[in-house]
Amino acid sequence: MKAMRTLVRASAMAVTAALLTAPAAAEDGYRLWLRSDAPAEGPIAISRLGDTPTLRLAEAELRRDLPAAANLPVVVALASDPAVSALRLPVAELGNEGYLVRPSSIGGRQVLLITGNTDRGVLYGAFALIRHVASGGQVANATLRSAPKVKLRVLNHWDNLDGTVERGYSGESLWDWWKLPDYRDPRYTDYARANASIGVNGTVLNNVNAKADSLTAPYIAKAAALADVFRPWGIRVYLSARFSAPIEIGGLKTADPRDPAVAAWWKAKADEIYRAIPDFGGFLVKANSEGQPGPRDYGASHADGANMLAAAVKPHGGIVMWRAFVYADTDPEDRAKQAYTEFKPLDGKFADNVLVQVKNGAIDFQPREPFHPLFGAMPKTPLMMEFQITKEYLGQATHLAYLGPLFTEVLEAKTGRGQETVASVVDGESENHQLTGMAGVANIGDDRDWTGGTFNQANWYAFGRLAWDPSLDSAAIAREWAQQTFGTDPRVIGPVVDMMMRSREAVVDYTGPFGLAHLMATGHHYGPGPWVSELQRPEWNPVYYHRADRQGIGFDRTRTGSNAVAQYAPAVAKLYASPRTTPESELLWFHHLPWDYRLKSGETLWDGMVRRYDRGVATVAAMRREWDGLRALVDTERWEKTAAFLAIQEREARWWRDASLSYWQSVNGLPLPAGAAPPEHDLAWYKAQSYPHAPGNPH
Amino acid sequence: MKAMRTLVRASAMAVTAALLTAPAAAEDGYRLWLRSDAPAEGPIAISRLGDTPTLRLAEAELRRDLPAAANLPVVVALASDPAVSALRLPVAELGNEGYLVRPSSIGGRQVLLITGNTDRGVLYGAFALIRHVASGGQVANATLRSAPKVKLRVLNHWDNLDGTVERGYSGESLWDWWKLPDYRDPRYTDYARANASIGVNGTVLNNVNAKADSLTAPYIAKAAALADVFRPWGIRVYLSARFSAPIEIGGLKTADPRDPAVAAWWKAKADEIYRAIPDFGGFLVKANSEGQPGPRDYGASHADGANMLAAAVKPHGGIVMWRAFVYADTDPEDRAKQAYTEFKPLDGKFADNVLVQVKNGAIDFQPREPFHPLFGAMPKTPLMMEFQITKEYLGQATHLAYLGPLFTEVLEAKTGRGQETVASVVDGESENHQLTGMAGVANIGDDRDWTGGTFNQANWYAFGRLAWDPSLDSAAIAREWAQQTFGTDPRVIGPVVDMMMRSREAVVDYTGPFGLAHLMATGHHYGPGPWVSELQRPEWNPVYYHRADRQGIGFDRTRTGSNAVAQYAPAVAKLYASPRTTPESELLWFHHLPWDYRLKSGETLWDGMVRRYDRGVATVAAMRREWDGLRALVDTERWEKTAAFLAIQEREARWWRDASLSYWQSVNGLPLPAGAAPPEHDLAWYKAQSYPHAPGNPH
Repeated sequence: MKAMRTLVRASAMAVTAALLTAPAAAEDGYRLWLRSDAPAEGPIAISRLGDTPTLRLAEAELRRDLPAAANLPVVVALASDPAVSALRLPVAELGNEGYLVRPSSIGGRQVLLITGNTDRGVLYGAFALIRHVASGGQVANATLRSAPKVKLRVLNHWDNLDGTVERGYSGESLWDWWKLPDYRDPRYTDYARANASIGVNGTVLNNVNAKADSLTAPYIAKAAALADVFRPWGIRVYLSARFSAPIEIGGLKTADPRDPAVAAWWKAKADEIYRAIPDFGGFLVKANSEGQPGPRDYGASHADGANMLAAAVKPHGGIVMWRAFVYADTDPEDRAKQAYTEFKPLDGKFADNVLVQVKNGAIDFQPREPFHPLFGAMPKTPLMMEFQITKEYLGQATHLAYLGPLFTEVLEAKTGRGQETVASVVDGESENHQLTGMAGVANIGDDRDWTGGTFNQANWYAFGRLAWDPSLDSAAIAREWAQQTFGTDPRVIGPVVDMMMRSREAVVDYTGPFGLAHLMATGHHYGPGPWVSELQRPEWNPVYYHRADRQGIGFDRTRTGSNAVAQYAPAVAKLYASPRTTPESELLWFHHLPWDYRLKSGETLWDGMVRRYDRGVATVAAMRREWDGLRALVDTERWEKTAAFLAIQEREARWWRDASLSYWQSVNGLPLPAGAAPPEHDLAWYKAQSYPHAPGNPH
Repeated sequence: MKAMRTLVRASAMAVTAALLTAPAAAEDGYRLWLRSDAPAEGPIAISRLGDTPTLRLAEAELRRDLPAAANLPVVVALASDPAVSALRLPVAELGNEGYLVRPSSIGGRQVLLITGNTDRGVLYGAFALIRHVASGGQVANATLRSAPKVKLRVLNHWDNLDGTVERGYSGESLWDWWKLPDYRDPRYTDYARANASIGVNGTVLNNVNAKADSLTAPYIAKAAALADVFRPWGIRVYLSARFSAPIEIGGLKTADPRDPAVAAWWKAKADEIYRAIPDFGGFLVKANSEGQPGPRDYGASHADGANMLAAAVKPHGGIVMWRAFVYADTDPEDRAKQAYTEFKPLDGKFADNVLVQVKNGAIDFQPREPFHPLFGAMPKTPLMMEFQITKEYLGQATHLAYLGPLFTEVLEAKTGRGQETVASVVDGESENHQLTGMAGVANIGDDRDWTGGTFNQANWYAFGRLAWDPSLDSAAIAREWAQQTFGTDPRVIGPVVDMMMRSREAVVDYTGPFGLAHLMATGHHYGPGPWVSELQRPEWNPVYYHRADRQGIGFDRTRTGSNAVAQYAPAVAKLYASPRTTPESELLWFHHLPWDYRLKSGETLWDGMVRRYDRGVATVAAMRREWDGLRALVDTERWEKTAAFLAIQEREARWWRDASLSYWQSVNGLPLPAGAAPPEHDLAWYKAQSYPHAPGNPH
């Protein structure tokens, strides 16, 4: 009798438990910002005029992602279709990739027309409509028009042929080179689809620290299989080329770009690649940097090297992206000056299918850097922007740092040449370059959620959107991403966007305020290491960058120092010449200042620094509280993962703050300002931390 | 008008296309053999008596996996529950992990009772019922009873702390050490669940080629987080211990097991681990093998080393698994003899919580090896079987090779001591050992389908089932796996089981028939390399193993050779002493024979070899045809992946065959028998193939 009662009670309990069980298809983040799969109420009225693989994809995407509630038939069609051209729409300005979405009358029926001059344009239009609706817009009144301002919108994968990813924090490489070309993982399609949805139209498959093997016949066949998958999504494949490949796999004795045999080898190699990949995009090259081979090994210039490769791909319509990130193997006067010093004199010397790819700042993807002085300094050369989407220096996978504000801060920067901005250099408007590009070092791996964390997806998204249109607002991008990713509930979107928009400045605050940079631990670049001073080359050491001593801190890049400020146009150089006119956010990048230097707030520099570190930690704590408040409004799996990450971030923000303050105090001997908590451990403890198995290290 | 017609036509076409679109939740293999999620018709009547986390899991599994059509209420309950003990069922024989499933009357109601003496037993019973039903059985008449014959059923992960997996072909390590212990990936739960469903009750988290770091406080905390996830599923965590850890992380000058400071260090380390993981299983040790440190470095014996560690974990109930795979750094007389020579004299010298873990054969997980001579030779010592589930030598991820027949061939082997079989040594029956175990080197990584291919899942499954009961039939296991994995349609199951049961012998045929072994390429062990002869140590070279010359081929392990046959019990040694009484499948393992040696078929050895290579290729081609015939009956994603893999396998079976025959012909100068196709390329071509980025290489 008692057993029966227990049974009944347990049974009732169990039914409740079953109702609470999570669905089998959990919110694991795989779907990214494209989440409205499989409309519940059956297909809506979507029609297609014309038939290409890409038009079919546009149609399928609308069927898959548009909510069933769409209240107007949708038609996808090329602008050249007679039914569309009869409407005499202003399509010329859409170019090769733009789209127009608007209510129209076709064949006597009122429909929503999605059109463009190419099927790629139509596909982008379909995704624009999906984005519009997922962000709360209606189908009925949708009127959308856009054409990309930048021609090459390219991800750079620092993926090695053995499956590891340099500076990758989200698993292994997506490319299963070993099983290619035979096995084409369905995930390759999902990758292309996600990129197409944000306008990315190119992908460099392999690491800029390249192996020559990637140019051998078996690897060309593997790349070709990926290109076949990507093609209907409007995405071209590029390869990083190792400059010494003619020696390593070509049997030549030299890779001198002026040697006709070398040029012939590259030409034959390009011909071989184009036979397998007719729309191959071209080569990305890291030359004479961090030990990579290059033309300088032979006394030739970067232009000699780039132009030789450019000639090889030119007959096929290919291009060369030549990186300006040079990092010589001799000690520099000021590492920040190297790229400008080497490349500025080459302006005008590059072939017309070469872009010089310049990192956003002069050092290396720090949480904050002033814009790179090459922007505006090479008017005759298309300069391609290189952003880093993977957060090598901003907490890697686990720290929430939305990079939209970092990207736009650089793009909006004035170069000092009239009203020219970095964006107008990159998008070609400034000098009327037709060949333009923006590259993002991808944060994508084979983790189920692609990027090692939900909020990291926003950085991939923001890169794509800004490459399409560098004038977009980073908060608006955050909002549209959040709405697509978490739904449009304002109780969620408000806090999520708020967290995102505060997050990057928080990282700056707790890792290196006031323009400090390169203070991280060696190798894996994870965690603080401002005390590191004993590495072989001076500029490998954080002490090289902060130059802190008993009197003061900061790198003097004015005339009394390295005079790197002179690399900027006079209007900007003048601002940076004095601490008073230098934005305080970049103060110690340009100036060595006494610890008691008075900030605009009236505080001393030291007190201000402590306050910034504390602000960074406090911001993360606040972000964590905001996220805690969303527990009931976000699905369990994604909520818990971000909650775990925010706990890590808060702990590590404190670690950065405490370790840094410990070290600065050991240098300046100053007490903490009143109210500031002492570091949890002594400096020796922080110095003793080590992370031998941290991810993302180069081989 | 024409536009409208086109529109209508396109629209109709599109609707058809939409209906053909694959569902969002594709069959990507993630669910393994547990596929009946989310019953369509609501929860069936399932009740639970008692409340432990594991009982709750048993109940939840039944709700999740039992089809809604179950026609009898199901009750899960401990045998000690008054409602069950009143039934006076024969539960004593179930031991600690066994289960009983049978129709019973509880509280006046007719129910299907699932019971056991522990909640783990009940959980295993729930999975047994799910397996029963998914294999076509009914709930109403289910009467199932089983208790495991082997106590420790353990996966060995050769996973490194940096996320790579030695001999792993399915992505990175499942363990995201970097984000542990903070972030517990939901996948850890799914891993534990899959293991529990087949009876695996332990997992060694890290590579036997261990880093001492895995025993530091941060990594103990990470392992503890995993142990917390695994515990309710009845799975204990073990760690591989690096023998020199007292030096590397303990600051001692020696790791000599006879040094009291070393013993004290290990005791303190064990105490530290057990504070974090109260049910920690114990240590797995690879010592004095392939460069790993061990007691022999100090002139102490393997027993000295094992017993010292055993004493450290003994107070906590832990055990030590000490590997017999020794591979000394001096040239051996015959590598196959080393383990026996070193371990046989130690029989009786090990502490009672030590198992000696012995690979199935005397070399190293070859496609076929005779059973290891230590089985039956150490009656006073519990010998743990070590199988390799990951197919290092059997085509790695892409070749279909079902290992059930390999496992059972070894388990059923007679040791020559009366009726003793290897299985009866391993399950303790032969010498009445209570401490028994079976280890499987895992093939699990973070690939979406866990094992890099659907059919590789079957090897994980078969290992678990055979560890539970070594007497199970490999074909029956194949059938129950196939039914759970692909559904019970006999049009699918017939061909699938047929393919599986032929597959391993096909690999033997095309890689090394008649007992040939260790013929693979160096390092990554992928593809043929029978010609390799110039590696530093003799036994690293394939020529050491096949000993082919103009006159003959094979390794003489009889009295005229290394006399390894004398390591077997006399009854077996006598059989292996003569080629006429040696099974032809093991012929060249034991004998060096002339090329014109007459096989039982009447053919010469050479002609027979060629025929076996051809048979291997033909079998793969036939498997491919069988799979082609299932295209309409298997979901697209899994069908296409296996189809791509079978295409690779057929090409590579030919490669193995052609490369091997080219080489044998270069040695013996013999023509191919009539009708045999000549190799596609010459020997130089095969020798020139290289795979610098093959997966799974050790660091």
